[in-house]
Amino acid sequence: MKRTIFDAEHEMFRESFRQFLDKEVVPYHLQWERDGIVPRELFYAAGKLGFLGMDVPTQYGGGGEPDFRYNYVIHEEVQAAGVNASGLGMSLHNDTGIAYLLHCANEEQRERWLPGVVTGDLITAIAMTEPGTGSDLGAVRATAIRDGEHYVLNGSKTFITNGINADIVIVVAKTDPSKRTGGLSLIVVERSQVGFTRGRRLEKIGMHAQDTAELFFENARVPAANLLGEEGAGFHYLTQNLPQERLAIATISVAAARAALELTLEYTKERTAFGQKVGSFQNSRFSLAEMHSEILIATTFVDKCVLAHNAGELSAEEAAVAKWWCSDLQNRVVDRCLQLHGGYGYMSEYPIARAFVDARVQRIYGGTNEIMKEIIGRSLGV
Amino acid sequence: MKRTIFDAEHEMFRESFRQFLDKEVVPYHLQWERDGIVPRELFYAAGKLGFLGMDVPTQYGGGGEPDFRYNYVIHEEVQAAGVNASGLGMSLHNDTGIAYLLHCANEEQRERWLPGVVTGDLITAIAMTEPGTGSDLGAVRATAIRDGEHYVLNGSKTFITNGINADIVIVVAKTDPSKRTGGLSLIVVERSQVGFTRGRRLEKIGMHAQDTAELFFENARVPAANLLGEEGAGFHYLTQNLPQERLAIATISVAAARAALELTLEYTKERTAFGQKVGSFQNSRFSLAEMHSEILIATTFVDKCVLAHNAGELSAEEAAVAKWWCSDLQNRVVDRCLQLHGGYGYMSEYPIARAFVDARVQRIYGGTNEIMKEIIGRSLGV
Amino acid sequence: MKRTIFDAEHEMFRESFRQFLDKEVVPYHLQWERDGIVPRELFYAAGKLGFLGMDVPTQYGGGGEPDFRYNYVIHEEVQAAGVNASGLGMSLHNDTGIAYLLHCANEEQRERWLPGVVTGDLITAIAMTEPGTGSDLGAVRATAIRDGEHYVLNGSKTFITNGINADIVIVVAKTDPSKRTGGLSLIVVERSQVGFTRGRRLEKIGMHAQDTAELFFENARVPAANLLGEEGAGFHYLTQNLPQERLAIATISVAAARAALELTLEYTKERTAFGQKVGSFQNSRFSLAEMHSEILIATTFVDKCVLAHNAGELSAEEAAVAKWWCSDLQNRVVDRCLQLHGGYGYMSEYPIARAFVDARVQRIYGGTNEIMKEIIGRSLGV
Amino acid sequence: MKRTIFDAEHEMFRESFRQFLDKEVVPYHLQWERDGIVPRELFYAAGKLGFLGMDVPTQYGGGGEPDFRYNYVIHEEVQAAGVNASGLGMSLHNDTGIAYLLHCANEEQRERWLPGVVTGDLITAIAMTEPGTGSDLGAVRATAIRDGEHYVLNGSKTFITNGINADIVIVVAKTDPSKRTGGLSLIVVERSQVGFTRGRRLEKIGMHAQDTAELFFENARVPAANLLGEEGAGFHYLTQNLPQERLAIATISVAAARAALELTLEYTKERTAFGQKVGSFQNSRFSLAEMHSEILIATTFVDKCVLAHNAGELSAEEAAVAKWWCSDLQNRVVDRCLQLHGGYGYMSEYPIARAFVDARVQRIYGGTNEIMKEIIGRSLGV
Repeated sequence: MKRTIFDAEHEMFRESFRQFLDKEVVPYHLQWERDGIVPRELFYAAGKLGFLGMDVPTQYGGGGEPDFRYNYVIHEEVQAAGVNASGLGMSLHNDTGIAYLLHCANEEQRERWLPGVVTGDLITAIAMTEPGTGSDLGAVRATAIRDGEHYVLNGSKTFITNGINADIVIVVAKTDPSKRTGGLSLIVVERSQVGFTRGRRLEKIGMHAQDTAELFFENARVPAANLLGEEGAGFHYLTQNLPQERLAIATISVAAARAALELTLEYTKERTAFGQKVGSFQNSRFSLAEMHSEILIATTFVDKCVLAHNAGELSAEEAAVAKWWCSDLQNRVVDRCLQLHGGYGYMSEYPIARAFVDARVQRIYGGTNEIMKEIIGRSLGV
Repeated sequence: MKRTIFDAEHEMFRESFRQFLDKEVVPYHLQWERDGIVPRELFYAAGKLGFLGMDVPTQYGGGGEPDFRYNYVIHEEVQAAGVNASGLGMSLHNDTGIAYLLHCANEEQRERWLPGVVTGDLITAIAMTEPGTGSDLGAVRATAIRDGEHYVLNGSKTFITNGINADIVIVVAKTDPSKRTGGLSLIVVERSQVGFTRGRRLEKIGMHAQDTAELFFENARVPAANLLGEEGAGFHYLTQNLPQERLAIATISVAAARAALELTLEYTKERTAFGQKVGSFQNSRFSLAEMHSEILIATTFVDKCVLAHNAGELSAEEAAVAKWWCSDLQNRVVDRCLQLHGGYGYMSEYPIARAFVDARVQRIYGGTNEIMKEIIGRSLGV
Repeated sequence: MKRTIFDAEHEMFRESFRQFLDKEVVPYHLQWERDGIVPRELFYAAGKLGFLGMDVPTQYGGGGEPDFRYNYVIHEEVQAAGVNASGLGMSLHNDTGIAYLLHCANEEQRERWLPGVVTGDLITAIAMTEPGTGSDLGAVRATAIRDGEHYVLNGSKTFITNGINADIVIVVAKTDPSKRTGGLSLIVVERSQVGFTRGRRLEKIGMHAQDTAELFFENARVPAANLLGEEGAGFHYLTQNLPQERLAIATISVAAARAALELTLEYTKERTAFGQKVGSFQNSRFSLAEMHSEILIATTFVDKCVLAHNAGELSAEEAAVAKWWCSDLQNRVVDRCLQLHGGYGYMSEYPIARAFVDARVQRIYGGTNEIMKEIIGRSLGV
Repeated sequence: MKRTIFDAEHEMFRESFRQFLDKEVVPYHLQWERDGIVPRELFYAAGKLGFLGMDVPTQYGGGGEPDFRYNYVIHEEVQAAGVNASGLGMSLHNDTGIAYLLHCANEEQRERWLPGVVTGDLITAIAMTEPGTGSDLGAVRATAIRDGEHYVLNGSKTFITNGINADIVIVVAKTDPSKRTGGLSLIVVERSQVGFTRGRRLEKIGMHAQDTAELFFENARVPAANLLGEEGAGFHYLTQNLPQERLAIATISVAAARAALELTLEYTKERTAFGQKVGSFQNSRFSLAEMHSEILIATTFVDKCVLAHNAGELSAEEAAVAKWWCSDLQNRVVDRCLQLHGGYGYMSEYPIARAFVDARVQRIYGGTNEIMKEIIGRSLGV
């Protein structure tokens, strides 16, 4: 049966994005893995070719296509090229950072920021998690206390993707610390903000080329004009935007699993052990068949979710289903594929090795898979 | 997001089939479970209301709707009513027996048999498996040797669904015993055939109301006019029809899993342990959430497969994916649901208990799930 | 490496018990499965040969060997003979019923009951679970209110093993309904007790030869002399005795898994598919190797637990570990073994089919496996 | 129940080894992880204190205790200290390198090498795997052709633990290339050997402090006096020594799993989410309880294996069982423990993060877990 989600324009976009990766990312990926960060020039290059802000209205320089399939194409190609950690920063920028601006910014803010996020001049990050808070947004301790025309921001954030490269950081803080989720607001902190410092790049077990950092705010006086949306409505905005972030993780997961399977099929068809092709052992064949099956099933599901999301019909619960199940699948698949590579699977120069360590975080960020099950369970009334 | 597979006419069909079940099956199901068979009158009643041969052309009295969604509706409602073992005989008749006649019978045969299969006067069975052969069709030992205007049929078959009730049995036998799969033909044996006897009903661990039997052929002289299609083309026909049988198993699996989850949700919301609802324990909630997730994913996949099958675009590999994965899912789900019922889950009067034992055979018949993985693996080139 | 748990006397006991099974049980097992009960004469026969009350002091006619290895031998041989459901009543009598009498009965009661339980004249049952209570002992609703020289017993119990055959039933009831677990006492109800009635045999998905029933108590005036131990100490006694019951389930599980694997090894070495032995397919070989491995590991663990139990050193947590893990293993093993039998695995006449349905209850009774994890988790301080 | 494997002298050894780790390894471990290698001085320090060659006869300076429990103590303490990758080189030296010398070297060789391996002057490595060969020893392509008083060695080896630090490398090569396993011999290549070069350190996804390398031999004329044992008996020696290597992996696995669980218990008891301790969520509690259970079971099994190995009674099949099952367990445990750490689990500075990536190779080296299942399956006759 045919996969019908993508149209001709998506395939053209795919082709041009693939060329961009081949030219601008693939040759440098291993170096960036060692550097622990991608150069910010990558964002300029991507912006120039239309790979940032595809859904930003054309009046701000964007693609004017509010169609998540373009984001999906980017995920698929990044995975197919094996440059996951170099691509994530751009995807987070597109899937999440820009989404908040589009959904919550007022006209003045849109004019101020959207052109830059489309060109790559302004790299976005979302600062939600705090040391010791995890997925519990009600427990956020960062405060942004109104003082005249400013918010005085104090607190620290951790595990921030694009944490080093980011120019504008959407910070989740309590404008009313007496409340739990009801006291949250979103405030944009700019690079030059006095009182805003960054910690060192965090060393992770994978996703090496993607910069993750702690951020610190100490009496940072942020202009009140940088409040996104309504004061106290932060939790509402997060709730609205998290499904897209989770869907993004799901699509990345399926794309990553497919890429891992493809290179493992190739490997097991070539490589010989005990006088026969590795893939021809029944245990390998069943393993490959099982992975192929689950990836086909996951693709069907996620494709439907993406179309539903475009139509505004994807529920938070459905996004949660996609997030936990696909990221679990990705982890199962990369683990089995690594095993089929034998000792080579453990060597970082082999793409499957990087796919393995990169995959592990997908079950954690965007809300742990346990949080996803809470969300789904509650929707079932239990 | 919405489920879009069914149209208004399917829902009307569903409503009328549900009434049929409520009136003609549900009140008797437990008795038939004890009897080990459904009365053949059930087929007359189903035939009268249009629940047999929905895809048989109207000229033979059928529904004239070559649309597998009607079969799917039947599967869903049989499962929702918890009368799996009473419903399977009809489904096998619809999904498999009639399919062979529609695809392979010549006009004379169509006129001879199709009206009866639609009214329920002729119940069908497929006799493929032999004692000691399993899924290996090339190893069939039954022979049908041409002798003038007859085939002389010898051999025995086992695990035959509708084995006791069947009026016409499509027998897989070798017209050329010197070959493996190339020597197979399909021959229809009628109830009155001299040399055809049935063994006792086989006692199974589940599916009690569904009659399963051994069949014996001893120098049975079957009219040559009962050959289905071409001599020696049996394997080809089987290969063509097995995907539909496997898709049927997949749809039954998903419907069964959904039904099991629904009654378990109900149970765990009512039942109390240690002062709280069983469903409200986090372990239960996660279990229910996981099952809900996988059933949603499976439904999306199988719905797409059914539409592809209607369009003639479902490959054998895709049917194999659906068969193994959904039947595995069904088994995981009924096992977890049973556990959530505690001791009641082990009592046959509880629907979940019957759902558990009924589910187990789905991973075996229609080609074991291991055979499915062989088929898929080969399609991947390994 | 050698298995060292059993001595020569255990092997002699094993040999004689095996002969007993061959003569008194194996020939009748399938009939008893249909009957849903074993004849009580079976207990006389077992008693006569020393297979009841091996640990009862010799002065009451018992074996005088407080050594759980004899019980273990019985479990192993019952499983090896494939007569699980016929043997369970005796094992429950030995492992649990008699244990309560030995640990809690006063001298008068020991003289009254122990000789009978050793000869098989008095079959025991434990009545703990109530409709709607499950594993939550604090929620027991049966009451035993002291009235002069009697306790007036009211309430109902369900899922009672030996429920039909039992002559003396140890009932868990609240002598002080104002308390939770602190109000529980154990009271022995005898066959002739006015106000004590039995419901019908409960139909289960497996364990057919083992009689399970509901019991009803309506103003049953039980002599106060039938109180076991101290009033209000019931929960303490249960807590003391449950580890042995759970260890018994664990040893049965491992024995059942081993028996299932052995018959599957035999089957897969003989049976051919696609021109080779079923066992010789790599998928089968790995499956068999995995099961063999886990059974070896489980045996090592359970053997150590049995010796520790003999020495009074098995903790409740360790018994819980053995119970959940071994019963889970048993279920995994019978499921895989059934699959390796193909269609035959679903036919009740095949021992693996009965092993499959019999196994399912082991994860439920004796405290569900979820309760076991609660017990273990709490012992870890979480 | 008590763990009885270790005696007082093992506990004294443990205490002194723990002090060694605290002083000589723990403070430097993160640096060595960055360096990708431990300094060879570490071996001198270990040798000085008696942590190398505990089983080497005292006449060569060794401990004179052929008791694998000392190796086991080292594994446990290395894991408890969280310095897995720094410790592995010493363990491999003890468990494997020295074992070959003890079992195969003649008296002249023992005198030549054993004193050095005990002091740490001679670090050992085993060179078995070749690029493209994996676990298939019959396919080894390295050749060692006798030429007068030398063997002319050609070929390359990969994934060699201690590959950079090693002073003497036991190379598996074919002295008779016309045969498969029958042509294999073991030849010791010394650091100064002309024609022997080392490739760069291989970058791995974990085990960073442990140096892994490729080795190259180009017309290296190795003295014939460096042949270990008989010419052509290499496969026999490997077969004899692999069980100890596999048992070592199993004991490391169990020790690693226990260490991971312990630090996770600590973490989940302290860390709060949604207003309660992370460990107190039922899902966490069950996860911790399950891990605790399986580690207890694995410990019991591996302890028995170690004692059997000491007694010369551990079969190759049993070692294979221990290797695959315990390394699988380790991987399950570190994965679940990482998840319980949330985002911190992905940060390399957290021990659980390193435990996760370090664990992955255990299912591959020492013979992949698939090879283990082949060995076990064959021993079952399938």
